[in-house]
Amino acid sequence: MKLSQLFTKTAKEAPADADSVNARLLTQAGFIQKQMAGVYNFLPLGLRVLNKIENIIREEMNAIGGQEMVMPALTQEESWQKTGRASLDILFHLQGQNDAKMVLNPTHEEVITPMMKRFIASYRDLPFAAYQFQVKFRNEARAKSGILRGREFPMKDLYSFHADEKDLDDYYEKVKAAYFKIYERVGLGEKTILTFASGGAFSKYSHEFQTFCEVGEDTIHLCEKCRVAVNADILQDQNSCPECGNKQLKPYKAVEVGNIFKLRTKFSEPFGLTYKDAKGQDHLVEMGCYGIGLSRLMGIIADIFNDDKGLMWPESVAPYKVHLIALENEPGVAKSAQKAYKELKERGIEVLFDDRPDVSAGEKFADADLIGLPIRVVVSKKTLQNKSVEIKGRHTDKMTLVGQDKLLKAIED
Amino acid sequence: MKLSQLFTKTAKEAPADADSVNARLLTQAGFIQKQMAGVYNFLPLGLRVLNKIENIIREEMNAIGGQEMVMPALTQEESWQKTGRASLDILFHLQGQNDAKMVLNPTHEEVITPMMKRFIASYRDLPFAAYQFQVKFRNEARAKSGILRGREFPMKDLYSFHADEKDLDDYYEKVKAAYFKIYERVGLGEKTILTFASGGAFSKYSHEFQTFCEVGEDTIHLCEKCRVAVNADILQDQNSCPECGNKQLKPYKAVEVGNIFKLRTKFSEPFGLTYKDAKGQDHLVEMGCYGIGLSRLMGIIADIFNDDKGLMWPESVAPYKVHLIALENEPGVAKSAQKAYKELKERGIEVLFDDRPDVSAGEKFADADLIGLPIRVVVSKKTLQNKSVEIKGRHTDKMTLVGQDKLLKAIED
Repeated sequence: MKLSQLFTKTAKEAPADADSVNARLLTQAGFIQKQMAGVYNFLPLGLRVLNKIENIIREEMNAIGGQEMVMPALTQEESWQKTGRASLDILFHLQGQNDAKMVLNPTHEEVITPMMKRFIASYRDLPFAAYQFQVKFRNEARAKSGILRGREFPMKDLYSFHADEKDLDDYYEKVKAAYFKIYERVGLGEKTILTFASGGAFSKYSHEFQTFCEVGEDTIHLCEKCRVAVNADILQDQNSCPECGNKQLKPYKAVEVGNIFKLRTKFSEPFGLTYKDAKGQDHLVEMGCYGIGLSRLMGIIADIFNDDKGLMWPESVAPYKVHLIALENEPGVAKSAQKAYKELKERGIEVLFDDRPDVSAGEKFADADLIGLPIRVVVSKKTLQNKSVEIKGRHTDKMTLVGQDKLLKAIED
Repeated sequence: MKLSQLFTKTAKEAPADADSVNARLLTQAGFIQKQMAGVYNFLPLGLRVLNKIENIIREEMNAIGGQEMVMPALTQEESWQKTGRASLDILFHLQGQNDAKMVLNPTHEEVITPMMKRFIASYRDLPFAAYQFQVKFRNEARAKSGILRGREFPMKDLYSFHADEKDLDDYYEKVKAAYFKIYERVGLGEKTILTFASGGAFSKYSHEFQTFCEVGEDTIHLCEKCRVAVNADILQDQNSCPECGNKQLKPYKAVEVGNIFKLRTKFSEPFGLTYKDAKGQDHLVEMGCYGIGLSRLMGIIADIFNDDKGLMWPESVAPYKVHLIALENEPGVAKSAQKAYKELKERGIEVLFDDRPDVSAGEKFADADLIGLPIRVVVSKKTLQNKSVEIKGRHTDKMTLVGQDKLLKAIED
């Protein structure tokens, strides 16, 4: 993509109403634009980050047998009455022209559970898991922390269906492992901690994945031996590590980046989702649910990976890998930079090309730092004197001159 | 994908409340599941069709310089008051916890126009075009025709921004050509007709793309010489072909599958979206908007391409290319079919593999016809006697036996 074509622009000033580092940097760099509190536009650069995150999650969900589908946002209020959740204060209520009472789903148990009555009859239909990437709505009293806590946000939610608790338990462990792979791949692996949370009436625990972050709204209590934590709810009942009994738990600020939950028969019961076993006897289906908010993940990555100059994307989720700059508005520079752009693209390397003729070198460098792609490549009159280009990683001040013909190799290494 | 794993099942009976061919066949075949009137779940097979359509549209939008982004569904009602559209009866209204009045967008002029004030200042920022794939909401009094007219549906909407009318006109023709490519690629090319529609206060005409279809809710009036049509609104003012003046227009039933509209300054005016020309003078930005409903396209394809046995997908949008059947529950058959499955997948050919051990041959054939993939491949005791497999296109009764080692070549030809 050429910056001369990209319709977004960076802003020197922080937006006046930015309530977090992620909102400030992502807005200034042109990744997002606030629509209203908790509601954001995802501009071309921002959408590319979301898509990278989505594809990583999709690969890991497919790897554990998840089948992708997509459910609607609108649902009859009646389904939420059945589970006693119609009065949740985060539910948006709507009135149809035909007096139909509807809600906007903040989660999809009320949709997927009754739907599966069409597809589950026998033990032979189990187990399976279905997931979606879909936009959730929450009528938050106070949306805050930029894209971390929104009124409308994209989410991956997976639901699994099992004949018995043992099978649910086994699958739950598979999802747990898949989630760790996801955090590892998006660059949050070392900072993300399995955290024991309340399991509700049906299960002893559920689990959150919490990422250490000084601006986090949660406090988790870490067992440094086991590298697991308990959240504030659990701490009230039990101030020790659930795995080793260690009572020396240390508090840390953190942000929830995912949660997994054994629903057991909480939803199959009100909707009568049952299967027949080999002897023809009816049983309730055991269920699990597993969520990750995509924009929340993007927000926390922006909150963690930045410096005073701007964003610093991990390569796996960066909108492009290379930020290529034609430094001066000069025919030789433009031609060489254009050639490098073409070569990189042909090699399948994603490049953002600052080909703007009317922008100063200083602004180009500042924009590269603000947007925060992993590798900066500069073509200038000076580099051309040595038939070379200058390469610099976003995480370092060290610049390397490499021959123009060595660029591809240097980028790929 | 193995049918033994896929959680959906076909249904022998048509759903009692199916109001159209598309709803009946897509539901029976397990592509969709109705949530409520005008609101559908897209199951794994259905999502694959939507994704194929989306990718075709994306390629054509990118080819005309469209930049992908995504805007929210929730928007402050105030923006709709500004354009006088807050009282549209298809708008869903919502109340936030903090008394914020919001709507669910049925289209995005009220979002994108004010947003672009951040990015458009000078004539040098123009022209450009931005698009999204996003879910629209319409508070329809009567949702009908299956997935053709929904309360909630995925749509591609493109918006273009120009310094003058001439530039808008030129881009409008580019979009028109891109739309014809899209209909061609999804299999509706020959049946889809450019149709002149009302342009509103700012332009003489807008254009709809109408696909001939006997169950269509619109009537278009075709000039057979020019292969263009006028819609019912236009016919009232002018009962002749807008291109050649021919008065012999013939009425046909059709379904709208897209529309393009020169908005001119209809939205830039209320939001004050202006740019400065080279002399520093302010002008309103000229805009165009261009929509295609994805599920509507999927629905019309299902309505048109079917027979009494089921769906008949064009290859470009089929969820898989090949329906592979292991006919009998017999070790030799299972092994050979498994081998064919592996080879096809390794070659990058998308295969749905009916490996179900407990389903009769008759049911397997019936499911293949109902689901409607382009090519059926059968491995059976009989074909194995000749070291061959049987290949049949969904559109023909002609079966061909080819050697097991010739399968890939036969499929690719």
